[in-house]
Amino acid sequence: MQVYSIFLTLAGSIIALAFAGLTARKVLKFDRGNDLMKKISDSVKSGANAYLKRQYTVVLVFFAVMFIILSAMSITGLLTPFVPFAFVTGGFFSGLSGFVGMKIATSANARTANACIDGLNKGLRVAFSAGSVMGFTVVGLGLFDISLWFILLKFAFKLTPDAITAAMLTFGMGASSMALFARVGGGIFTKAADVGADLVGKVEAGIPEDDPRNPAVIADNVGDNVGDVAGMGADLYESYVGSVISSMALGVAAFKGSVYGAISVPLLIATAGILCSIIGTFLVRTRENASQKDLLKSLSRGTNFSAVMIAIISFPIVYFCLDGFKTIGIYFAILAGLIAGVLIGRSTEYFTSDSYSPTKKLAQKSETGSATIIIGGLGLGMLSTALPIVIVAACILIAFFVSGGKGNSNLGLYGIALSAVGMLSTLGITLATDAYGPVADNAGGIAEMAGLDKSVRERTDALDSLGNTTAATGKGFAIGSAALTALALMASYINKVKEISPDANTVFDLMSPTVLVGLFIGTCLPFIFAALTMDSVGKAAQSVVVEVRRQFRHIVGLMEGKADADYATCVDLCTKASLREMVLPTVVAIITPILTGIILGYQGVVGMLAGATSCGFLLAIFMSNSGGAWDNAKKYIESGVHGGKGSDQHKGAVVGDTVGDPFKDTSGPSINILIKLLSMVSIVFAAVVVKYHIL
Amino acid sequence: MQVYSIFLTLAGSIIALAFAGLTARKVLKFDRGNDLMKKISDSVKSGANAYLKRQYTVVLVFFAVMFIILSAMSITGLLTPFVPFAFVTGGFFSGLSGFVGMKIATSANARTANACIDGLNKGLRVAFSAGSVMGFTVVGLGLFDISLWFILLKFAFKLTPDAITAAMLTFGMGASSMALFARVGGGIFTKAADVGADLVGKVEAGIPEDDPRNPAVIADNVGDNVGDVAGMGADLYESYVGSVISSMALGVAAFKGSVYGAISVPLLIATAGILCSIIGTFLVRTRENASQKDLLKSLSRGTNFSAVMIAIISFPIVYFCLDGFKTIGIYFAILAGLIAGVLIGRSTEYFTSDSYSPTKKLAQKSETGSATIIIGGLGLGMLSTALPIVIVAACILIAFFVSGGKGNSNLGLYGIALSAVGMLSTLGITLATDAYGPVADNAGGIAEMAGLDKSVRERTDALDSLGNTTAATGKGFAIGSAALTALALMASYINKVKEISPDANTVFDLMSPTVLVGLFIGTCLPFIFAALTMDSVGKAAQSVVVEVRRQFRHIVGLMEGKADADYATCVDLCTKASLREMVLPTVVAIITPILTGIILGYQGVVGMLAGATSCGFLLAIFMSNSGGAWDNAKKYIESGVHGGKGSDQHKGAVVGDTVGDPFKDTSGPSINILIKLLSMVSIVFAAVVVKYHIL
Repeated sequence: MQVYSIFLTLAGSIIALAFAGLTARKVLKFDRGNDLMKKISDSVKSGANAYLKRQYTVVLVFFAVMFIILSAMSITGLLTPFVPFAFVTGGFFSGLSGFVGMKIATSANARTANACIDGLNKGLRVAFSAGSVMGFTVVGLGLFDISLWFILLKFAFKLTPDAITAAMLTFGMGASSMALFARVGGGIFTKAADVGADLVGKVEAGIPEDDPRNPAVIADNVGDNVGDVAGMGADLYESYVGSVISSMALGVAAFKGSVYGAISVPLLIATAGILCSIIGTFLVRTRENASQKDLLKSLSRGTNFSAVMIAIISFPIVYFCLDGFKTIGIYFAILAGLIAGVLIGRSTEYFTSDSYSPTKKLAQKSETGSATIIIGGLGLGMLSTALPIVIVAACILIAFFVSGGKGNSNLGLYGIALSAVGMLSTLGITLATDAYGPVADNAGGIAEMAGLDKSVRERTDALDSLGNTTAATGKGFAIGSAALTALALMASYINKVKEISPDANTVFDLMSPTVLVGLFIGTCLPFIFAALTMDSVGKAAQSVVVEVRRQFRHIVGLMEGKADADYATCVDLCTKASLREMVLPTVVAIITPILTGIILGYQGVVGMLAGATSCGFLLAIFMSNSGGAWDNAKKYIESGVHGGKGSDQHKGAVVGDTVGDPFKDTSGPSINILIKLLSMVSIVFAAVVVKYHIL
Repeated sequence: MQVYSIFLTLAGSIIALAFAGLTARKVLKFDRGNDLMKKISDSVKSGANAYLKRQYTVVLVFFAVMFIILSAMSITGLLTPFVPFAFVTGGFFSGLSGFVGMKIATSANARTANACIDGLNKGLRVAFSAGSVMGFTVVGLGLFDISLWFILLKFAFKLTPDAITAAMLTFGMGASSMALFARVGGGIFTKAADVGADLVGKVEAGIPEDDPRNPAVIADNVGDNVGDVAGMGADLYESYVGSVISSMALGVAAFKGSVYGAISVPLLIATAGILCSIIGTFLVRTRENASQKDLLKSLSRGTNFSAVMIAIISFPIVYFCLDGFKTIGIYFAILAGLIAGVLIGRSTEYFTSDSYSPTKKLAQKSETGSATIIIGGLGLGMLSTALPIVIVAACILIAFFVSGGKGNSNLGLYGIALSAVGMLSTLGITLATDAYGPVADNAGGIAEMAGLDKSVRERTDALDSLGNTTAATGKGFAIGSAALTALALMASYINKVKEISPDANTVFDLMSPTVLVGLFIGTCLPFIFAALTMDSVGKAAQSVVVEVRRQFRHIVGLMEGKADADYATCVDLCTKASLREMVLPTVVAIITPILTGIILGYQGVVGMLAGATSCGFLLAIFMSNSGGAWDNAKKYIESGVHGGKGSDQHKGAVVGDTVGDPFKDTSGPSINILIKLLSMVSIVFAAVVVKYHIL
């Protein structure tokens, strides 16, 4: 019976996609404003298209090569024949999530700006609706992909539950690879454009920010969509799918008798989460002369309602799918994940918002120059890792033990995986509150460039500023769920090894030198990855600088506003640079687990995964929070304290903000994906490693 | 028979101390120069004394409290009665190492400056001799402490080998605590003085560096001795002693039959290392008009000779102490450690010296401002972790497997511990080449302040610049040996747990939630520790700024050179601030392993130690190398490239250097000690944790 719950999930995914579609239609009905606004918005849109065209070429080549490799492995019997296809669909849907998100975001920016002419509430509706399209596309496509494969493998190929989940686990690698491309590429793009535009436009040519004469200004606006929208979408698509599938796989291992019940739990929670999120979106609206606090309350109303709803609904799901009160502890694992997500978000907010003392104190350090604000920001970011680590540690322990991990460790691991599902269950709406920020940001740029009334810019600023706070919460979810999902995938990897080689040693003793060396290497990876991505931003920005300088010199009448800048070339350049630069980090992320496995064996791989997960989690939080705090410290100073805009203190804070750019928008978030991709690659290549390894 | 080799070690330690004493006498025979030089040198010396006075007061209180706690634990049977006393002697000798090093360094600075009047070779002899005093005091006191305790426990108390090594392991905690005080306190002192002196003196008052009118100038010079000399000495004392003792303990576990042979190997290698190092020091001399290359060659001749000698002598030691050719693999473990130490040093040099492309490229980033040089430096430091991690990983694997770890893991762990002993065996001379740098640095300051001929300053600069390179190598040894020693201590901790509770589960499965959560917490600790120490530097510097401003305002005639600045107050202030600020980090380092143990049990403690060791190793390298590269990039620019001194590029590089100061001189090196102290505390409190824990 329980096996048919998959059709509920399929239905839920279709509802989510339909809701996204309806919401998109609603957004598109709004007016795009005057001709200038349309022109600017079109430039951003065509820039985004230029990026997508180039990106898909690179990605296509990569996927083709991987498809051939995986097919060859299938033929030699190292993989099941489904893997190459699963790999491709995972990548396709992940890419599609980013694509749809970016499309709607670039369509909504001018509409948001125009709606803000009428009032704040209308502006919020447009921007938030655009965010919702993104949010529900991600969860809808995720569950759609999962249900289709499940139905195909179960009812067409009639595989056993073990075989189904084993095959499905591998399509995560496609999603992860695509997500890494989107996040790293997008992250490099947005920061290269940002830095390039600032360095030549603001510093050398002396024209203000968002000035249409700056050839890189459109690239900068494209970057917001490419990095913050598409990157975030692909990232969370992959966490979402990864957490659901790994729970399914661990459920099969934990419940030998009633596997379909165990499989149903994550599926039904995700499905219920979609419905709760949809209802939640209807609660997001505000009064006309709303303060920022009101705006935040309005958004919180939606997300809190969804969270409470799912907390209630999960209880009967666990009760009926599993063994009633005997296994009800698992419900509390889900609850722990839900609460942990919220708490990590709060902790991020505390450390990065200028409403609290850490960022205020950081702003004060600008009084003694840029060096002290840099040291202060690095210290703040490092210190801010303590709370999330305690929260996640508590979540892991609670989830493991309440689920009955003491007697049966598979049950405990199932609980940990479900805590990630719980954390991500309301992703539809949490992602909406997150993705609407860049839309409001773009709208502000358009309002500025189109010379709209000052009150419009004030309204978009109010929306944007709120977006920073919700983005902080969103990042908390992304990082926390990445860590828990990575742990679940690690457990799935071990089960995979056991499946391939039943007499494998699946105790991973920290005192074994291969495990230990794996741990060292894994701990090192996030550092290397962060270094490579930061370096890439630098190089890509350099090439933008050269191009912008060239245009200023060679396009006659550009500075006088008589000739148009060649925006497309800048966008294309950013695209090329970012796609070129992201190859090395991606290769490192894919090759290292394979190499580690071949040298150290699967014992070393588990050590590596543990090291990368724990260190990556910390480094991601450190970099995101340092970057966020610098950004907000700068904005805080711009609000008039410590000398205000233009003062020496402000210049110091700008240095901090610039350092923070690649921290928070490129390296930090990419590490989330890195730690999951490492597990995914390990799972796909498990058979190779078990068969061929040196130590 | 073999048990009597301890008397050879005792003799070796006495030879080392005698050699240090004779060298000190030789140094003191040189002339201190003219009256002004004497006056300046006396100020530095009295400043150092002021620091010591205050430091020992704090340390005394800490040790008294700990002595009472440990005594109480002894009485209740949780510890053997030797522990409180061993704790105190460990701390005493570690402190004495730092004290002697600082005394000789502050006595040699003016003498080096004066010797440089006669020529470069004479200057090198004085500075290097002062470094040698420090180096041989550290190894001499270390082996002296070890031999005395061994003789006492073996021949007076007639304990078994197990009991002897178990008791001796605990005195490492005293040494570690003292080292942490010295490193953190010294690190905060030196950077607070440095930053304070610069901010008010150079920036506000507009007087040059090393100007005697600056009330903080002496504190700055004291800081070099306090941070770089005393801190480094206490750090390496503790690594040295820790690696020898943990090898002895692991040898007892590995060789049930011929324990005294296994105990003798580390003792005899350390003893032979002293003799090789002494001979090596006689090879350090140079021609009069030597280039920097010649100088480096001269130092390398000494260290290389010692290393080759010890590589040869270790062979018969292993052959005769153990089972001939049957266990000769262990010799290669020692060799691996020796080579790994050299390679890590080379890697550090490559990433931080301006002779190679990374630092040159970093300097070039100053062209686009301070933000890009900061991002570049952070990226460089992160990337520079890759090579050391591969080197240490290879060393661990080689040491483990060649020692026969595959059949008997205790043998493999013994091999890993001995690789640390191999790495540190020539510490006498490597520390000498390291500790002479700050002496030359101080000599340069005195030459400047006393207005000596320009050629003198050029000579001290040549010595100082070389000191930066050897310091890089020294840091490589310190970090590499800290990681290996920490692993050996981790193994010793597990043996300790087994000894306390023979049926303890001594498999530490990464998939056990307590181990995993311990790992997460351990990974977090170095981040927290780095954040706290960076924050402390900021706060302490702030109080120096206030005091210097006060003196400029209130001491009539100071700016005109008619009245003396009140140096002692500044020194006292730095001392107070640094000692106050170091309490929190130290408390965190001591409390965390105990708390972790009580909540998660000994399984969690091992997870924590593994996480802290791997992440701490990386963070220490990252921070040291970023700091070193920024420092040298600034010096490279000062040599005339990229605009040279005073240009905007130079200003950008100065920001990088200032950020790098706490990185490389406070936080980075302190982490070395942190990871060892965590293990030491865990070992001492093992009985408590095994008896009382929640999970």
